[in-house]
Amino acid sequence: MRVRNPPDTRTGVPADLAEVERLAAARLPPDVRDFIAGGSGDEVTLAANRAALDGVGVVPRTFAGVEAADTGVSLVGTRAALPVAVAPMAYQCLVHPEGEVAAAAAAGAAGVPFTVGTLSSRTVEEVAKTGAPLWFQLYWLRDRGLVGELVARAEEAGCQALVITVDVPVMGHRRRDVRNGFALPAEVRAAHLVAGPTEAHERRDVGSGVAEHTSAVFDPTLGWRDLEWLRARTRLPLVVKGVLDPLDAARCVGLGASAVVVSNHGGRQLDGAVPSVTALPRVVEAVAGAGDVLFDSGVRSGTDVLRALALGATGVLLGRPVLWGLAVDGERGVARVLELLRAEFAQALLLAGCADVDAARRLATVSTGRGAP
Amino acid sequence: MRVRNPPDTRTGVPADLAEVERLAAARLPPDVRDFIAGGSGDEVTLAANRAALDGVGVVPRTFAGVEAADTGVSLVGTRAALPVAVAPMAYQCLVHPEGEVAAAAAAGAAGVPFTVGTLSSRTVEEVAKTGAPLWFQLYWLRDRGLVGELVARAEEAGCQALVITVDVPVMGHRRRDVRNGFALPAEVRAAHLVAGPTEAHERRDVGSGVAEHTSAVFDPTLGWRDLEWLRARTRLPLVVKGVLDPLDAARCVGLGASAVVVSNHGGRQLDGAVPSVTALPRVVEAVAGAGDVLFDSGVRSGTDVLRALALGATGVLLGRPVLWGLAVDGERGVARVLELLRAEFAQALLLAGCADVDAARRLATVSTGRGAP
Amino acid sequence: MRVRNPPDTRTGVPADLAEVERLAAARLPPDVRDFIAGGSGDEVTLAANRAALDGVGVVPRTFAGVEAADTGVSLVGTRAALPVAVAPMAYQCLVHPEGEVAAAAAAGAAGVPFTVGTLSSRTVEEVAKTGAPLWFQLYWLRDRGLVGELVARAEEAGCQALVITVDVPVMGHRRRDVRNGFALPAEVRAAHLVAGPTEAHERRDVGSGVAEHTSAVFDPTLGWRDLEWLRARTRLPLVVKGVLDPLDAARCVGLGASAVVVSNHGGRQLDGAVPSVTALPRVVEAVAGAGDVLFDSGVRSGTDVLRALALGATGVLLGRPVLWGLAVDGERGVARVLELLRAEFAQALLLAGCADVDAARRLATVSTGRGAP
Amino acid sequence: MRVRNPPDTRTGVPADLAEVERLAAARLPPDVRDFIAGGSGDEVTLAANRAALDGVGVVPRTFAGVEAADTGVSLVGTRAALPVAVAPMAYQCLVHPEGEVAAAAAAGAAGVPFTVGTLSSRTVEEVAKTGAPLWFQLYWLRDRGLVGELVARAEEAGCQALVITVDVPVMGHRRRDVRNGFALPAEVRAAHLVAGPTEAHERRDVGSGVAEHTSAVFDPTLGWRDLEWLRARTRLPLVVKGVLDPLDAARCVGLGASAVVVSNHGGRQLDGAVPSVTALPRVVEAVAGAGDVLFDSGVRSGTDVLRALALGATGVLLGRPVLWGLAVDGERGVARVLELLRAEFAQALLLAGCADVDAARRLATVSTGRGAP
Ligand SMILES: Cc1cc2nc3c(=O)[nH]c(=O)nc-3n(C[C@H](O)[C@H](O)[C@H](O)COP(=O)(O)O)c2cc1C
Ligand SMILES: Cc1cc2nc3c(=O)[nH]c(=O)nc-3n(C[C@H](O)[C@H](O)[C@H](O)COP(=O)(O)O)c2cc1C
Ligand SMILES: Cc1cc2nc3c(=O)[nH]c(=O)nc-3n(C[C@H](O)[C@H](O)[C@H](O)COP(=O)(O)O)c2cc1C
Ligand SMILES: Cc1cc2nc3c(=O)[nH]c(=O)nc-3n(C[C@H](O)[C@H](O)[C@H](O)COP(=O)(O)O)c2cc1C
Repeated sequence: MRVRNPPDTRTGVPADLAEVERLAAARLPPDVRDFIAGGSGDEVTLAANRAALDGVGVVPRTFAGVEAADTGVSLVGTRAALPVAVAPMAYQCLVHPEGEVAAAAAAGAAGVPFTVGTLSSRTVEEVAKTGAPLWFQLYWLRDRGLVGELVARAEEAGCQALVITVDVPVMGHRRRDVRNGFALPAEVRAAHLVAGPTEAHERRDVGSGVAEHTSAVFDPTLGWRDLEWLRARTRLPLVVKGVLDPLDAARCVGLGASAVVVSNHGGRQLDGAVPSVTALPRVVEAVAGAGDVLFDSGVRSGTDVLRALALGATGVLLGRPVLWGLAVDGERGVARVLELLRAEFAQALLLAGCADVDAARRLATVSTGRGAP
Repeated sequence: MRVRNPPDTRTGVPADLAEVERLAAARLPPDVRDFIAGGSGDEVTLAANRAALDGVGVVPRTFAGVEAADTGVSLVGTRAALPVAVAPMAYQCLVHPEGEVAAAAAAGAAGVPFTVGTLSSRTVEEVAKTGAPLWFQLYWLRDRGLVGELVARAEEAGCQALVITVDVPVMGHRRRDVRNGFALPAEVRAAHLVAGPTEAHERRDVGSGVAEHTSAVFDPTLGWRDLEWLRARTRLPLVVKGVLDPLDAARCVGLGASAVVVSNHGGRQLDGAVPSVTALPRVVEAVAGAGDVLFDSGVRSGTDVLRALALGATGVLLGRPVLWGLAVDGERGVARVLELLRAEFAQALLLAGCADVDAARRLATVSTGRGAP
Repeated sequence: MRVRNPPDTRTGVPADLAEVERLAAARLPPDVRDFIAGGSGDEVTLAANRAALDGVGVVPRTFAGVEAADTGVSLVGTRAALPVAVAPMAYQCLVHPEGEVAAAAAAGAAGVPFTVGTLSSRTVEEVAKTGAPLWFQLYWLRDRGLVGELVARAEEAGCQALVITVDVPVMGHRRRDVRNGFALPAEVRAAHLVAGPTEAHERRDVGSGVAEHTSAVFDPTLGWRDLEWLRARTRLPLVVKGVLDPLDAARCVGLGASAVVVSNHGGRQLDGAVPSVTALPRVVEAVAGAGDVLFDSGVRSGTDVLRALALGATGVLLGRPVLWGLAVDGERGVARVLELLRAEFAQALLLAGCADVDAARRLATVSTGRGAP
Repeated sequence: MRVRNPPDTRTGVPADLAEVERLAAARLPPDVRDFIAGGSGDEVTLAANRAALDGVGVVPRTFAGVEAADTGVSLVGTRAALPVAVAPMAYQCLVHPEGEVAAAAAAGAAGVPFTVGTLSSRTVEEVAKTGAPLWFQLYWLRDRGLVGELVARAEEAGCQALVITVDVPVMGHRRRDVRNGFALPAEVRAAHLVAGPTEAHERRDVGSGVAEHTSAVFDPTLGWRDLEWLRARTRLPLVVKGVLDPLDAARCVGLGASAVVVSNHGGRQLDGAVPSVTALPRVVEAVAGAGDVLFDSGVRSGTDVLRALALGATGVLLGRPVLWGLAVDGERGVARVLELLRAEFAQALLLAGCADVDAARRLATVSTGRGAP
């Protein structure tokens, strides 16, 4: 039997996202790898996200008669080359010294909006220099003045939407972090918050520094009135991230949000929460066209993007795979991830007989597995 | 690759229930471990209990606007800090010399009702000294006089409810015990029954001493008339434990029971019985608010408590995990188990957007797996 | 860790059917073990039979108020101590020199009807000497005169029912036998057919001797008219074995059959056939009380008997486990198997709150897995 | 324990298709084996095809009263000894020097139509010399003149139907080929296209030569108007291959196609596409008898043929197993594969109580697993 070269060592260019994941896993310290890969509790929801996506069977159309599919789309008013934006993810300097700057540069080059997090390890101003289309993600901080400041900075820096994350009143119990006594290294900071070290940097025998920090600075009382407060305070479109209940989604758009993100935070918050894709069609129905419906939690391929569209999503947020790319090769790594996804999605459109993203939203689906809607 | 310290040896404080289980398994003699862990027959129901719970997807609500969820609740009239009571479990001195006294002390400190079993290895009077809120569990003994005495002793000792277990006309066929020739060591006794050694203490090559004892002293003819007899005999609220059929549940409350426990005895009685959580919603519907509906068989995390509430339960009974904690570190071990569960449940409430236990009972659920309702 | 004695070597008395299976597997030559255990084709139906049974969740009733359940029943007019008869199985001398005589003796002692096969390796007259209640199973032979003779011999020998097997127009393709080049040893003969060696005794490199023999002597043209022929020829009750389609079942009783056996021949005939238990409720509904509905294919425990009854069966046929017992210890082994099953079933009745077999037929079931009805 | 000879080395004659697969896998270079076995993307659809087929439970009828089932059928007007045709598969010289000629010869001898592909490595004229009933498969080439020529050559050579494959606007992303840097060896050519080496022959470190070639010569714009163009150009019956959507199927027959093939190209095109068998009954319903409905993607046994018929298919295309047979032993190997399939199918008919193919189409089915319709 011929010995087959592992493809990555042969060319250095991973041929699919799973390869990027393997490469990243080999490169990262175990506790950082766990911080990224892990979910909360028994990780039932983490696993169910994938199982449910794999169970969505798409019914392709034939005879499309198109040369090349148009993958472009408008997401919450931002023009995007793909129905994809980069999900907000904290502390990207953990996996690469350039952190969010490198990731955003790659996203910008790919025509994909990048979401700068409240817990970004590079400031929104630094990230904005990349020229990438930006969104800004808000966590609800106990220090309301700081929230106002962040909104102002985001607007100033040219962000085109505000993403308010509503599924982290407190951080989910991520057992891997607790067991690893995970804490941030000194050089990784929440660049928009305080300058010095925080609870997040204190190593414990058992317990997550990041979770401690979150509970110190986040305000769990975030409620509907706060959405109204925010709505009144900015002219940017608002995206509410972390919605799984149809009634909540309807209320969000009723209160002026431009979009919701159907998400269970990648299985990192409530373990036992419904798989995100299972919840998607009901939210789509409830929003009924009154806003965009984005989707995340488990997207790993162009086919997953197609599945989400076929179930009615406007687009998806890409999470962990971006961090894999960043860990492997900084900006180039993220570029590779987005290029792989673009190529897969463009091909998926063609193979499904769709000339564009709208056509994909008219595809039928069939449930063929566990938790698939 | 960095070698990761097993967390428990690092601090001695397990970070989740699964760790407590592993620690207990390492500490207990194999036949005792099997007596606790085992189910009846092919253990199909034992496994199905977990599979069905994992398949319950909860739909969390966002924008709850609450600082900290209130976990308090009234269970069958007993005020509890959590919607949790400790399930009746026989012979707790098997796993720790202090047995029920240690477990009840921990429960009391946590504000959780403790159920003293007919087959308790410490007397209800001893257990009552811990000051914990107590319930008393009745098995239907052939010696009816003794049943009456037990009721009187329970009332006298300040127990706040009587739990009558109706799913053990005879003991389920627990193959592990039979193969192990399991019998009680001389120092572990059913403290409320006879003083000397019984069938339960006779070691056999094959066969379960505990099962032999049960069939000698239990009266399998327990019927509806006996519930009426008991109802007439005590002013304590009655809880009927081991109900899976909706009509039976309705009849129980019709005859004056204050609550039923939807339970298949942790997969230890009829193998092939419906998973307990599958049966739960139908019982809730049948009881229709006329009594409390408690749930057990498979609860292992705060998320499981949330799942049960979302399906309409008033609260749950916690079984095996209490014995794990007791085996690992006596009262302290049980305290750790209850504290882990409390923290998980409090967090689950917050993450699900619930200000209190009642809000949890209004959550929607989605079936995402095998046997989930 | 204490080393646990394998229970069987400790006492020689297996504690459950799975143990009997292991013991038998260790004792039998691999090709005989394969002949018994194997199914046809990819063995999809063989595996599905079990999966579907395991997915049947029974809803037990509480407060039955019975001391001991009555397991007795009438099966096709034959009084039986259990709702169980021994399925017809060919060539039992393959696994024990006494063959059908030993098995029938054990069945008789247990009050369980024994079915003598057309391909029995002991004659019906020899078997009848055991005094066991007997049924006789007919294969449709090309030699119609011989069929008539067999009917006459069965009546003469006191058989109380004729079981006509209709799912073997030809033998299913059992790959294990084909690969093993399976053939009968010289001393094992179809005692009711020719005296000398047949195709069944010719060893091939590849190919099943037993299948060759079947295709030489069986008449695949068995049709409805033949059922009428048979009906007219005997006063014995007729049982049609191998019915999965509800319309076929209705027609059988319409033509005067007293019962049907819902069976896929233990996954040995059409691979890809519906699991037998999946088909059961529809057949029960179609027969609508106009005849008995027996069930086989996968019964391995008292719980399985209960499941079948709860789905409407009158009783079950026990197949492979009888051969395991016979292989392990002849008559004593079969007695052990039947005693284990009896004990399990009696207990299952009690635990399900059923005073008798009729009560079991009123239990509700819930589907909790793959293929369960 | 007796050591069992692997059956294939004993006689050289594999006893079932799985054995043929094993033998072929052992004989082929790993990259060719991967080219044949592989699917696109994560191979979710590839696996789902089998899972869904295994979940189709057929309900056999008893008392068929037939001696031997008639397996003959008309497929798109071609008389066939089985409801089976050989699927179009490119480059068969990859696995055997005689390639399509050997495979067609075996098909012809078995009375099974053989489909010559556009990418055949032997010309249709060479293949026609075998005398086998032929169909010709068209890919839509950028060079429309060449398409016209191929149609003419196919007619001239006596092909009895044109199969137009519509699910390959571009080639699916087959990761195994990409990782293997798969390319054709110099001696294997698309005999109907250019004479010299093409992109398909260029070895890359990473990337599929075959995919590069496809995208150079295939016209992705194939649309409904092209079907009309083709319909007007030939009197041969048209078969549209790669249809999963019921509306598409209805439109195909509306535009004059004689048949559709429900297929996801063996999981090689859109990963995430619905399992082919899941889509089958809806297409059958939509076509409503106005054309034949063929089925492929996962057929591995006579039972699978029966399943497809029971779900309403007219017949099936046999794909990969033909290549296994060809790899193992050329014409003889394919003959063995077809003979195994014939024997299995003939037996499946008998065991299901079907006198002929039409009877099989009246069988009921029950879903017993993942993705089964
Ligand atoms: C390491 C990491 C950090 C994250 N940080 C944030 C964050 O700061 N704000 C936020 O709204 N979501 C955060 N998320 C959640 C993502 O936005 C997204 O919802 C999730 O990653 C989607 O799941 P997937 O990565 O499995 O596709 C984070 C996720 C990961 C993996
Ligand atoms: C070791 C052990 C002993 C038990 N003893 C009793 C008992 O004496 N009375 C009773 O009603 N239930 C008894 N149970 C059942 C529990 O009350 C409860 O129903 C069950 O443990 C729930 O399943 P879980 O532990 O898997 O959550 C016992 C369970 C175990 C594991
Ligand atoms: C070794 C063996 C031989 C059998 N011989 C016959 C037979 O001669 N006649 C018949 O009707 N069924 C025969 N059967 C089928 C059984 O009657 C019964 O339907 C089947 O064993 C049920 O499946 P189970 O054993 O998995 O429960 C045979 C089964 C086995 C395993
Ligand atoms: C190696 C290989 C080459 C193929 N080439 C073609 C082709 O040239 N044209 C075509 O229409 N389908 C082609 N197919 C798809 C088959 O026609 C058929 O749809 C598929 O093999 C069915 O799946 P199965 O082999 O798993 O049953 C090819 C399939 C394989 C495995």
